[in-house]
Amino acid sequence: TAEEVEKVLGPGREKDRSITNEVAGVVTGLAWTQVGGDILFIESSLTPGKGKLTLTGNLGDVMKESAVIALEYLKAHAKWFDLKPEVFDKWNVHIHVPEGATPKDGPSAGITMLTSLASLFTQKRVKKDLAMTGEITLRGEVLPVGGIKEKVLAAKRANIKEIILCEKNKKDIGEIKPDYLKGLTFHYVRIMKEVVDIALTKVDVKDKITVN
Amino acid sequence: TAEEVEKVLGPGREKDRSITNEVAGVVTGLAWTQVGGDILFIESSLTPGKGKLTLTGNLGDVMKESAVIALEYLKAHAKWFDLKPEVFDKWNVHIHVPEGATPKDGPSAGITMLTSLASLFTQKRVKKDLAMTGEITLRGEVLPVGGIKEKVLAAKRANIKEIILCEKNKKDIGEIKPDYLKGLTFHYVRIMKEVVDIALTKVDVKDKITVN
Amino acid sequence: TAEEVEKVLGPGREKDRSITNEVAGVVTGLAWTQVGGDILFIESSLTPGKGKLTLTGNLGDVMKESAVIALEYLKAHAKWFDLKPEVFDKWNVHIHVPEGATPKDGPSAGITMLTSLASLFTQKRVKKDLAMTGEITLRGEVLPVGGIKEKVLAAKRANIKEIILCEKNKKDIGEIKPDYLKGLTFHYVRIMKEVVDIALTKVDVKDKITVN
Amino acid sequence: TAEEVEKVLGPGREKDRSITNEVAGVVTGLAWTQVGGDILFIESSLTPGKGKLTLTGNLGDVMKESAVIALEYLKAHAKWFDLKPEVFDKWNVHIHVPEGATPKDGPSAGITMLTSLASLFTQKRVKKDLAMTGEITLRGEVLPVGGIKEKVLAAKRANIKEIILCEKNKKDIGEIKPDYLKGLTFHYVRIMKEVVDIALTKVDVKDKITVN
Amino acid sequence: TAEEVEKVLGPGREKDRSITNEVAGVVTGLAWTQVGGDILFIESSLTPGKGKLTLTGNLGDVMKESAVIALEYLKAHAKWFDLKPEVFDKWNVHIHVPEGATPKDGPSAGITMLTSLASLFTQKRVKKDLAMTGEITLRGEVLPVGGIKEKVLAAKRANIKEIILCEKNKKDIGEIKPDYLKGLTFHYVRIMKEVVDIALTKVDVKDKITVN
Amino acid sequence: TAEEVEKVLGPGREKDRSITNEVAGVVTGLAWTQVGGDILFIESSLTPGKGKLTLTGNLGDVMKESAVIALEYLKAHAKWFDLKPEVFDKWNVHIHVPEGATPKDGPSAGITMLTSLASLFTQKRVKKDLAMTGEITLRGEVLPVGGIKEKVLAAKRANIKEIILCEKNKKDIGEIKPDYLKGLTFHYVRIMKEVVDIALTKVDVKDKITVN
Ligand SMILES: [Ca+2]
Ligand SMILES: [Ca+2]
Ligand SMILES: [Ca+2]
Ligand SMILES: [Ca+2]
Ligand SMILES: [Ca+2]
Ligand SMILES: [Ca+2]
Ligand SMILES: [Ca+2]
Ligand SMILES: [Ca+2]
Ligand SMILES: [Ca+2]
Ligand SMILES: [Ca+2]
Ligand SMILES: [Ca+2]
Ligand SMILES: [Ca+2]
Repeated sequence: TAEEVEKVLGPGREKDRSITNEVAGVVTGLAWTQVGGDILFIESSLTPGKGKLTLTGNLGDVMKESAVIALEYLKAHAKWFDLKPEVFDKWNVHIHVPEGATPKDGPSAGITMLTSLASLFTQKRVKKDLAMTGEITLRGEVLPVGGIKEKVLAAKRANIKEIILCEKNKKDIGEIKPDYLKGLTFHYVRIMKEVVDIALTKVDVKDKITVN
Repeated sequence: TAEEVEKVLGPGREKDRSITNEVAGVVTGLAWTQVGGDILFIESSLTPGKGKLTLTGNLGDVMKESAVIALEYLKAHAKWFDLKPEVFDKWNVHIHVPEGATPKDGPSAGITMLTSLASLFTQKRVKKDLAMTGEITLRGEVLPVGGIKEKVLAAKRANIKEIILCEKNKKDIGEIKPDYLKGLTFHYVRIMKEVVDIALTKVDVKDKITVN
Repeated sequence: TAEEVEKVLGPGREKDRSITNEVAGVVTGLAWTQVGGDILFIESSLTPGKGKLTLTGNLGDVMKESAVIALEYLKAHAKWFDLKPEVFDKWNVHIHVPEGATPKDGPSAGITMLTSLASLFTQKRVKKDLAMTGEITLRGEVLPVGGIKEKVLAAKRANIKEIILCEKNKKDIGEIKPDYLKGLTFHYVRIMKEVVDIALTKVDVKDKITVN
Repeated sequence: TAEEVEKVLGPGREKDRSITNEVAGVVTGLAWTQVGGDILFIESSLTPGKGKLTLTGNLGDVMKESAVIALEYLKAHAKWFDLKPEVFDKWNVHIHVPEGATPKDGPSAGITMLTSLASLFTQKRVKKDLAMTGEITLRGEVLPVGGIKEKVLAAKRANIKEIILCEKNKKDIGEIKPDYLKGLTFHYVRIMKEVVDIALTKVDVKDKITVN
Repeated sequence: TAEEVEKVLGPGREKDRSITNEVAGVVTGLAWTQVGGDILFIESSLTPGKGKLTLTGNLGDVMKESAVIALEYLKAHAKWFDLKPEVFDKWNVHIHVPEGATPKDGPSAGITMLTSLASLFTQKRVKKDLAMTGEITLRGEVLPVGGIKEKVLAAKRANIKEIILCEKNKKDIGEIKPDYLKGLTFHYVRIMKEVVDIALTKVDVKDKITVN
Repeated sequence: TAEEVEKVLGPGREKDRSITNEVAGVVTGLAWTQVGGDILFIESSLTPGKGKLTLTGNLGDVMKESAVIALEYLKAHAKWFDLKPEVFDKWNVHIHVPEGATPKDGPSAGITMLTSLASLFTQKRVKKDLAMTGEITLRGEVLPVGGIKEKVLAAKRANIKEIILCEKNKKDIGEIKPDYLKGLTFHYVRIMKEVVDIALTKVDVKDKITVN
């Protein structure tokens, strides 16, 4: 029952959090911490420049590498996103993960970072009420990650409706009590292109800039 | 009563501190330390250059990241401040937080740094007797921070009259005894643009330079 | 017997892993960890640039050096691979080893990295169901590495059919129970050129790009 | 009495130290160490270059930051010192604090470094028998520092006649026995411009070079 | 007797090691480790570039410095080797010491590195069955090193026939039982030029490239 | 008596050390170690370049700073040495202190490094049988250093005939038993120019190169 779920999830303290998709590059990720799951936002922005990548948000080395891989993948597959190769030399990219007081690390924000950059360079909105977690690779595959149960419960608390996971994390969902999954739709993916196909809408962001 | 307040606040040892708004880039922030709250100043200056950012004042990595985010945000929204995009390539920016003997860290000086840079590039005075504390994000939102009670009391001791906080810190103010809040006006904000709108006056700084 | 093998190898948890050879630069290596052998993938990609080498995947210094040596060797012997010397100044190279949560180090991925780069620059497919492990040197020799038994068992679990090893690791194979080796073909090599000759096919990768 | 003073100050072991003001950039500072106060010299020199700042003398990060702030302040207020803005791009600046065997840190040499650089770029002599201690800020204010009593006694031992302090350190002088202060003149300052006005003479240094 | 020697030396496990002199830059050094002496190879290679020096092989700072000194010495005495000064700006140099799993440090590979670079830039073969150990200096002298007994025994196990040592290490050879030295010829040198004179043959390497 | 001296000094193990003054930049310094004094050599060399300074010999940060100060001083006083200011942009300078296995630190090699660079750039020989120890400053003064007794005894063992010391180290010589000082001449200096005047001869080095 809903009551029962409430008890397990705890009070909906994240419910009021503003999750907008009007701004390019803002994507909801799922994190696992020692005190349970949490949602996190990946933000990114472009400023005229020469292709420098800046990373902030108290990130560990592995999480920083995810950003490097995401950007490199985007560069190597620019055509898929209708991006001119030169575009990457004309802008500086900044990726930030808010709540700087908390150190963050691990590869699981990979698909979130990829989606953020794809939204940023295409200036397309990210689907609303969507969250995701998964490692990325240079060849374009999505790898499974840990802490799925805690992450899914945190997504629910934050009113997330759809979640993208690696196909190999499907078994982790099977182990969660179905009641807790009510109202959530799962997308299981194998490759990074599927993530972007699901996550990006065809609607321009507000205050769209001419990137390409 | 005033007497009672005096007792809690301790002697007004910071009262005599000169808080001027004549100089561009000087903004009063609020810090939380192990021995209570304190005010701190963010200073910034411009020298002809190529867009280098220098940070001094015994700052930790997270605090340095706040400065990077603030500058990046300003660049990405140059239009809002009537700044030409090229302006950021023609000047070196130096941000300093005085009292170098004390190590400083954390994200809570974010809105203070943003205001400092906005004042610096527009050469407008910051409102007098104003202090602020709040984390910034790349997408333009203001996030709540900790230590609100101690910070507010420190502001009062320093004769601050107005304080900018994140809307989500409103509840922390509700927990402070009303007597202690006498003479203080609070501005609760959701986004970074509101901070600048409140904090910057339309009056040029003394010895204004031509930045833009 | 197969049953016996199953018992030793444990359940085939890696069997379902997609090992494709359609993408340039993806090569299967063999790693030794405290909990046994494992397969790992080396991935690499090219983006227009000026010859910068980027390494990701939570790699230690020695493993990073392997990548530097592999690229240097390729440059010094460009002619053998029908590559123009200028080609290395026109592209940035990124080498990634997935599963960023796991720190990786040691020189044994050397021949795997070399094969990855050779496939990347020639845009030729790597032989299917092939894995390899071996240190490389600047003069072109392949050196023996440790953990051979565990690595071979891991390769078998992952449905690998052929394995490239240094000739000096032949004795380590002699010490493994023959039953465990059923279905595996071994290639013993002395020099790095032999590795590339065995590992690279003459078939172009899918979505071939013009590198040279 | 003199005798009494002698006892407290210890033997005048620093008396014979040559304190000349003929060379540009040599300024006497006051340091506080675990074994009492001491004088120290800030030296600086210019060589043709592109504006690089070199810092030597076994300096900690905070002390290095003081040098960066001092130089930045000078650049931002070049006009006050009749310096052309371009002058800072034509010279490399080296600041050294002798006695490399002793690690040195803290912000209290700030005004000493500022004076050194002001003397260096204007090629004016520093007043003789003058010492100073105080933190500097980017906005031009001088902040109080600690260890005043020990520093003043050290200055006296070294035959210093005048001392520049932050106005807020006046109270520390009030706590020193008047006998110990005989022969010393104190200058209390609020802003960095006052320091330079007091410290720099109008006399060119020996072997003056054409800087501006 | 030979039998006795065998006992002390242990089984000839390094005997089969291929020591070829066909490739430029491959030189045999002698190392001392906690489990006895060992031979090591210094390898080097040239690729078109701008004079960058790359060092790999899990080397400590002192060993890296040896490479820097060797290259600097070669540059300063280019004439002795019939090298044009410009040659050093046209190539990138990579020095590698195989067996990356073993950390290596100390100055004793100095003359080995010098010989490697001399062979590399002149494209002359190094004498066969030759090993060496000795520190180098910038002024061209060879300094004695430690672990001579262990190093010599290791050389013998590896079928080395000639060894170059600093003249000041002659006394260490005198302390080794003569039986163990059978079949070994020693060259004692004072200066670095002697090392190159002894070590380099007049025969071009295989696959010679045009360096100069 | 000589016998007594022998006993204190220990056997003359450094006597045979070749101390030549034919090569530019080789100067004998005096070091103090936990097992007594020792002599050390400062070497330096020039190669065509752009003014880069390379330091090797397992040097600590303070010792590296001495080299930076020495070079900066030489640049700032190029005229005194008849050097054109441009000369420093046309050469790379390498300073090395042999015996890389021993870590070295401290400011006392300052005058030795200065002399080495002065010899290098003027291509003049350093006086034979001369050693020195003393800290340098940017303004040109020589400062006293520690371990004088041990250093002097080490110099004597190495057949040094003349020693340059800071005037303020004269008192340390006064405390050494006169017998031990037989055959040694001391030069006490106040400023760095005196060091060079004493140490440099007017004779060109062998194999002189055209620097200026
Ligand atoms: Ca949170
Ligand atoms: Ca995540
Ligand atoms: Ca304070
Ligand atoms: Ca604050
Ligand atoms: Ca695995
Ligand atoms: Ca491997
Ligand atoms: Ca002192
Ligand atoms: Ca001071
Ligand atoms: Ca070995
Ligand atoms: Ca060696
Ligand atoms: Ca010695
Ligand atoms: Ca010395």
